Amino acid sequence: MTISGKNLVAGEWTGKVEGGFTAFDANTGEALLQSYADATEAEINEAIVSANEAFKTFGTLAPAQRAQFLRTIGEQIVALGDELVEIATTETGLPAMRIQGERGRTVGQLNLFADLLDSGEYEGVIDLADPQREPLPKPDTRLGYIPLGVVGVFAASNFPLAFSTAGGDTASALAAGCPVVMKAHAAHPGTAELVAQAILKAIEICQLPKGVFSLLQGKNYAIASQIVTHPLVKAVGFTGSERVGLILQQQINERPEPIPFYGELGSLNPQMIMANKVAQDGEVLAQGLVASLMMGQGQFCTSPGVWAIVEDDNYAAFEAAAAKAICEQPAGVMLTPKMAEGYIATVEAWKNSGATIVAKGKAADVAHHASAYLFSADLATFKNTDLLREEVFGSTALIVRCKDAAEQQEFISYIKGQLTGAIHAVEADLDATRQIAQLLVHKVGRLIYNQMPTGVEVCASMNHGGPFPASTDLRTTSVGSKAITRFQRPICYQNMPEELLPSLLK
Amino acid sequence: MTISGKNLVAGEWTGKVEGGFTAFDANTGEALLQSYADATEAEINEAIVSANEAFKTFGTLAPAQRAQFLRTIGEQIVALGDELVEIATTETGLPAMRIQGERGRTVGQLNLFADLLDSGEYEGVIDLADPQREPLPKPDTRLGYIPLGVVGVFAASNFPLAFSTAGGDTASALAAGCPVVMKAHAAHPGTAELVAQAILKAIEICQLPKGVFSLLQGKNYAIASQIVTHPLVKAVGFTGSERVGLILQQQINERPEPIPFYGELGSLNPQMIMANKVAQDGEVLAQGLVASLMMGQGQFCTSPGVWAIVEDDNYAAFEAAAAKAICEQPAGVMLTPKMAEGYIATVEAWKNSGATIVAKGKAADVAHHASAYLFSADLATFKNTDLLREEVFGSTALIVRCKDAAEQQEFISYIKGQLTGAIHAVEADLDATRQIAQLLVHKVGRLIYNQMPTGVEVCASMNHGGPFPASTDLRTTSVGSKAITRFQRPICYQNMPEELLPSLLK
Repeated sequence: MTISGKNLVAGEWTGKVEGGFTAFDANTGEALLQSYADATEAEINEAIVSANEAFKTFGTLAPAQRAQFLRTIGEQIVALGDELVEIATTETGLPAMRIQGERGRTVGQLNLFADLLDSGEYEGVIDLADPQREPLPKPDTRLGYIPLGVVGVFAASNFPLAFSTAGGDTASALAAGCPVVMKAHAAHPGTAELVAQAILKAIEICQLPKGVFSLLQGKNYAIASQIVTHPLVKAVGFTGSERVGLILQQQINERPEPIPFYGELGSLNPQMIMANKVAQDGEVLAQGLVASLMMGQGQFCTSPGVWAIVEDDNYAAFEAAAAKAICEQPAGVMLTPKMAEGYIATVEAWKNSGATIVAKGKAADVAHHASAYLFSADLATFKNTDLLREEVFGSTALIVRCKDAAEQQEFISYIKGQLTGAIHAVEADLDATRQIAQLLVHKVGRLIYNQMPTGVEVCASMNHGGPFPASTDLRTTSVGSKAITRFQRPICYQNMPEELLPSLLK
Repeated sequence: MTISGKNLVAGEWTGKVEGGFTAFDANTGEALLQSYADATEAEINEAIVSANEAFKTFGTLAPAQRAQFLRTIGEQIVALGDELVEIATTETGLPAMRIQGERGRTVGQLNLFADLLDSGEYEGVIDLADPQREPLPKPDTRLGYIPLGVVGVFAASNFPLAFSTAGGDTASALAAGCPVVMKAHAAHPGTAELVAQAILKAIEICQLPKGVFSLLQGKNYAIASQIVTHPLVKAVGFTGSERVGLILQQQINERPEPIPFYGELGSLNPQMIMANKVAQDGEVLAQGLVASLMMGQGQFCTSPGVWAIVEDDNYAAFEAAAAKAICEQPAGVMLTPKMAEGYIATVEAWKNSGATIVAKGKAADVAHHASAYLFSADLATFKNTDLLREEVFGSTALIVRCKDAAEQQEFISYIKGQLTGAIHAVEADLDATRQIAQLLVHKVGRLIYNQMPTGVEVCASMNHGGPFPASTDLRTTSVGSKAITRFQRPICYQNMPEELLPSLLK
């Protein structure tokens, strides 16, 4: 495979590569040689119009045919072999083993939706006619689901495969019957192109219309704006920062026709650490939290960013164990030099925020590598300092020291919506845990007991989403088989002859 | 029962009635004597804050307790007896039999949600732990649903019971566990107050916090604005005009936190009349369409407002039958004098729009009564005349005369999103019907074959909603048991001890 640097617009590789943007070797911080063509207004429009054209046939395919397409995409991604792992490793700085694992998850997600389609489980309710009913006969009504239309998807920086080109949003949109117009993340355009090549092969093998999938490269915000405001785009999936997510939300709000916007914007992922747990098991817990914080160099949306704990007699030992674990952490490469810069600037701002440094990981010997940090603050400081209540994208956590259990409960009132929240407790904490759980459940999309928030299961019972600003639509999940419902809508067929019903409603 | 004219704010009847607004006797067009207090800023805030306080307990009630509450509301509505029928009849001009039927439907809806809660069917997915799984153990994950919080509901003008104070939005929000702050419709404030009295009795009988339901009276737009932008309001249900719905949508878009907005804004409800059907059965169909159009004096959101038909040899007989049926229709009282005025003005505008009058119902001898009309236009006129593509709230329909089957298909491309669309056909039309159905399905929320769009079944397979502007969120229904999902969100419980799980997920 060779990288062209071009956009994939409905089966054609287009665009002017010379003078385009470049990505970086995350490990060295240096610009890579390959240039990429910024998608033009005409290319974006062509991609969307072709997608809408493709929708006319793709949107009516039998579920089994869509399942076949998803499985074929997975096979073609695997067939990319080591080249995919190498380029993703270079572009993101993530280790090869992590990329291999993520590839497995990406293919697994595609197959999960294929299994769902083959099972027919996601379909319909049938209420038969009752001509004898008084005072009026009951008509035959059957509830099915149809795809929304063209979906715009924005790739995430931190999961170059599982939340990018053929990631969860793409897989669930295609599973639903929606063509996808994908905006690649500018930090890993080569990874995106290789995966797009795999999808194009799958389109050819399955003989689908080419407009079913397009890949647009670019660094320019105007690309995003054009996608989300295009009248033929009927839903948008986005994983990224709160700042960019809110810009997209605002643009979408200006459309004449409202459309679903599924923005997954990150999270502090509060850890509620109960008193008896600290007494019995504080050191192991501290080590576990640090290990979770270090996953992907803290660049997970489920990273445990804030830990609320009562400052009792056992606190000092807990803090010491956490500090010791942090001190042992080597500095690490971040996804992009710019993100490393942003992370380092945030840590500097925290140093002047009223929070205290508890521990620092090993120093970085390269400018764009980053060290881990652990800070602490009392509840009043947390409450009064906006900066400490915002997500840090990197391996920094904040311990919020509460005077007593009441303050620990009060802490929950100061946090915004979260993807996850965890309670670390033992049986002796049960009553206090129940109270915490009743408050925390209204702030989170996933409530965890004695496990770490990192590591999101891809299954039917997963919810990856949560109250704003964790996500812009708290009624849905971006991970797991229920993600398909984001791109479908209900339709009631009344008194339809069998020949005109979808196969699953007959 | 006496009418106080006050607002119900968390169990207290408050407000200054003197100098407030009055409703009209729809039949005479004269203002009624009773004044009603416009809700003040302080009352609205108190209602919402109390609702949020009530949510802390109401939101965690066992489903069976919420079911009991819904059934008790229904009983208390029935216990209002004839007084409710009389006041609703006076305020809306709808006949007593219709109000009695609507009362039955309203109580039926409350009981439908109660049955759903008792059945436990709406709850959860359980994926058990698999500690042996390689490479990582699978945690126990269970997906449940929790209520969103305080819901603002706006009553509809045309269904004073079934889409108003204790109507579908209220019933589904309460069923979900969400307290309701209800804005009564200014056209039937007395009906609203009586039903609110019934809800308050049910709150007392079930010993629930009073904040679970408040009723706000008023004519002032500022009331709506304050409700939809209040930070403690977590979802809004609205049934009304596109104009008001879009104002609310815009205000909601300006909130820092996006919330679900379920606006049901009305519809043309296109009727696709196939050639062989006209040949075989045109007269009966024409009579059926006119009868459907006359339901509630055309003031149904599912009223058949536009009929697309090929102008072939059988057309003249069809048109003549429809014209004859229209001519026989007596003029009728409309919901309010202002609506009658609006309807009459729209009909006058249509007369100068390029459409031709096919027939007119009997003349009105009272200013605020309205006559039925049937117009026709060719496809080009329909395409080029915005006015003809907007909903008329009243008993006027438009026949769009298509030259051939291709034009009849093209017609579908000129209509916006619709609550319903119907195809009237016989077996000989099957191929053409299939093509029409494939196009029409993407414009409607309910696709009907050989039945009229009026009459919405309240059941699990109903969908009452549709692509914009039929509704502002096409992923949901406002009628039927699935309406409960509008006011809930998913939550994943991971590794939770049994004692902390909701009963239905144990």
